[in-house]
Amino acid sequence: MKNINVGLIGFGTVGSGVVKILQERKKFLKDKIGAEIILKKICDKNISGKRPVSVEKSMLTSNAGDILNDPQIDIVVELIGGIKPAGDFIRQALLKGKHVVTANKALLAEEGQELFDLARERGRNIYFEASVGAGIPVIKAVREGLVANKFQGVFGILNGTSNYILSEMSHENCSFQKALADAKKRGFAEANPALDIEGIDSAHKLILLVYLCFGRFVALKDVFVEGISRISLMDINYAREIGWQIKLLAIAKKSGDELEVRVHPTLVPMEHPLASITGINNAIFVHSDLVGNLLFYGPGAGWLTAASAVVSDIVDLTKDIRAGLFKPTLNIIPDQSVRRIEKIDEIESRYYLRFMTEDKPGVLGNVSGILGKFGISIASVNQKERKKAGVVPIVMVLHEAKEKNIRMALERINKLPTIEDKALAIRIEETF
Amino acid sequence: MKNINVGLIGFGTVGSGVVKILQERKKFLKDKIGAEIILKKICDKNISGKRPVSVEKSMLTSNAGDILNDPQIDIVVELIGGIKPAGDFIRQALLKGKHVVTANKALLAEEGQELFDLARERGRNIYFEASVGAGIPVIKAVREGLVANKFQGVFGILNGTSNYILSEMSHENCSFQKALADAKKRGFAEANPALDIEGIDSAHKLILLVYLCFGRFVALKDVFVEGISRISLMDINYAREIGWQIKLLAIAKKSGDELEVRVHPTLVPMEHPLASITGINNAIFVHSDLVGNLLFYGPGAGWLTAASAVVSDIVDLTKDIRAGLFKPTLNIIPDQSVRRIEKIDEIESRYYLRFMTEDKPGVLGNVSGILGKFGISIASVNQKERKKAGVVPIVMVLHEAKEKNIRMALERINKLPTIEDKALAIRIEETF
Repeated sequence: MKNINVGLIGFGTVGSGVVKILQERKKFLKDKIGAEIILKKICDKNISGKRPVSVEKSMLTSNAGDILNDPQIDIVVELIGGIKPAGDFIRQALLKGKHVVTANKALLAEEGQELFDLARERGRNIYFEASVGAGIPVIKAVREGLVANKFQGVFGILNGTSNYILSEMSHENCSFQKALADAKKRGFAEANPALDIEGIDSAHKLILLVYLCFGRFVALKDVFVEGISRISLMDINYAREIGWQIKLLAIAKKSGDELEVRVHPTLVPMEHPLASITGINNAIFVHSDLVGNLLFYGPGAGWLTAASAVVSDIVDLTKDIRAGLFKPTLNIIPDQSVRRIEKIDEIESRYYLRFMTEDKPGVLGNVSGILGKFGISIASVNQKERKKAGVVPIVMVLHEAKEKNIRMALERINKLPTIEDKALAIRIEETF
Repeated sequence: MKNINVGLIGFGTVGSGVVKILQERKKFLKDKIGAEIILKKICDKNISGKRPVSVEKSMLTSNAGDILNDPQIDIVVELIGGIKPAGDFIRQALLKGKHVVTANKALLAEEGQELFDLARERGRNIYFEASVGAGIPVIKAVREGLVANKFQGVFGILNGTSNYILSEMSHENCSFQKALADAKKRGFAEANPALDIEGIDSAHKLILLVYLCFGRFVALKDVFVEGISRISLMDINYAREIGWQIKLLAIAKKSGDELEVRVHPTLVPMEHPLASITGINNAIFVHSDLVGNLLFYGPGAGWLTAASAVVSDIVDLTKDIRAGLFKPTLNIIPDQSVRRIEKIDEIESRYYLRFMTEDKPGVLGNVSGILGKFGISIASVNQKERKKAGVVPIVMVLHEAKEKNIRMALERINKLPTIEDKALAIRIEETF
């Protein structure tokens, strides 16, 4: 049996995990697959830094060409992240006849169509299990395990950092800022956490899940994305009082011939399994026609967690390579019944509304008058105790309304002289 | 590309689902895999019965030999269940050079080692995704997705019928008998439900999960199995009062060099995700060293659900066949650190104890005296309101104790003249 040579580009956290597994499980993996996986070269711009694993100096290079141009290397593992130069490295690897493993959701969300097309053209595969849900084998499950299914929706908690922050706020009764600082201290948030807390990372992963389920790449600009930075402890507590938990959800679902694709803070019922997902965990629901609703749940971050997924991709590729399978083993078929991506304006949802008002008579009348004008009816109102001099929070739950109408109503409400700050609207999901 | 010919043995509920999917998704699957899956022949002892799908008469046979001896058939799908003649059919299929797909957990739990050895010898594969968790792709996840992992444990709710009964009792506040009758009416329980409610079906599935995680077949006789037929509504309600839900759990976990393998009703904390798994759903937790705790959750029964898994196995085999891979694609490696199956007597656990006593002074003293003699200490006692004349239930939660000691203590307690009926002990799990 041919041994498989691997070149790793990106010797950071996950890269170190991959090295560790390939070192420590060498015989274990060989016994399982009947071939040896040989880590031949590692490239990183910093090859002298301290890492949790040690490798022979001769394996290290800071020139990616040493891997991309090595004819003996069968699989290139790209773990540097970001768009450039990662995309170029993957293109070069494919052009040189190598298979690719990557965890790069940002790149695949942006240039996936082009990269997968190039791979198909060149008879090579790109595997990307670690890009969604880290070590949770959800991509394999959707692509292979559910191969005979058509999908109605896929949704869940895809970003561990945001989920950690929201559940810390909820359990520790602390502010967003305090929870974010804590996440940074514990290594669960980057120095610049914008990608995570603004929902972009979730959107990237959702784009990949939509590709797997519906066979098409949705452009990031067509995904409605709203992060968690406006969620306050007050909202978490008010929501809980009325039986809801606030989660940052990524949601894709078919409605007729349209596909809704969106990421935003969402109120989910307290008794729903998603409400109980805490910390850096991820949870992905997949709704398919033959099987129904499946949930995959597990840690969404961790060096060995993500590395486990990378290694499973390498193993899958060794099977392809030794079988001489020089084309994608499973084609992704576009779901022809999906004709359009629904505009967020057209989506109908129930809402949680919270605004801070002056404690004066008539405020509630003004607000409900504006809502009424846009055909929005109120399911419940709760005027809270005064928090600071003269300012009281009012929490409303609205009946189902069109997003467009909510926005127009909020624009007017925000202009009322009695409204302090901007009103906060959070969508409610109960249809899964 | 070579087309793949499939012969189906067993045209019952799941068999009909497989036929339906292969008929209705013919082009869909061909587009995905680049080869056509042709259902060539269907065998059942009853070929004239009514079914939810229609097939050409010429495809039907009541002689399995018509499939097993057909040199054009590449894959034999066995869906008749039971040990005989299913095992013989699978052996013949392998000897004739065919790959096998089966959903037969009872057979694999009993004769799996021999069948997998034969398959390896003959360079053929046996796939069995539908045998655990129906359409939940948990076998693929464990074998392929977690290929680099070593496992600490696997446990969960593996039998939909029992879970349906327990959650009906809990939600409808009804008796075991009523819930069982309801399950039968809704098609969730067989006419003879013993295999399901006595825990045997869960044990069969657990044996397969242990094989996948730890590389060895445990004999059914070495699995401690206790069903749910002694659980009363009273216990469900008492348990809930003190924050627990009763679930039929299948549990395999490493402790030192021993493996605990057991199936029994179990108290799980109300806030644990397993507590919220209702109806016929299954939920499987897999604890592995690189990824940590993963949960797979979804419907554990349904004709299309299980058929979806069977078809995914067929698709995997078409990949193997067209690649000329005439050997198992992934070997199962025995975990050498497991040396023994722990005897149930040696297991340590906390317990919920419930007994019915005469409402006389001194009863509690007698019981706690006996427990004390065996070194068992009581965490809490709750004497309940009288249910029938003179008889009161007493509920105790015990601190961690050895199973052996509990048994000896119960034997004595059951002999007390003041104890009506036999005491019920339910194990408590909180270590996952």
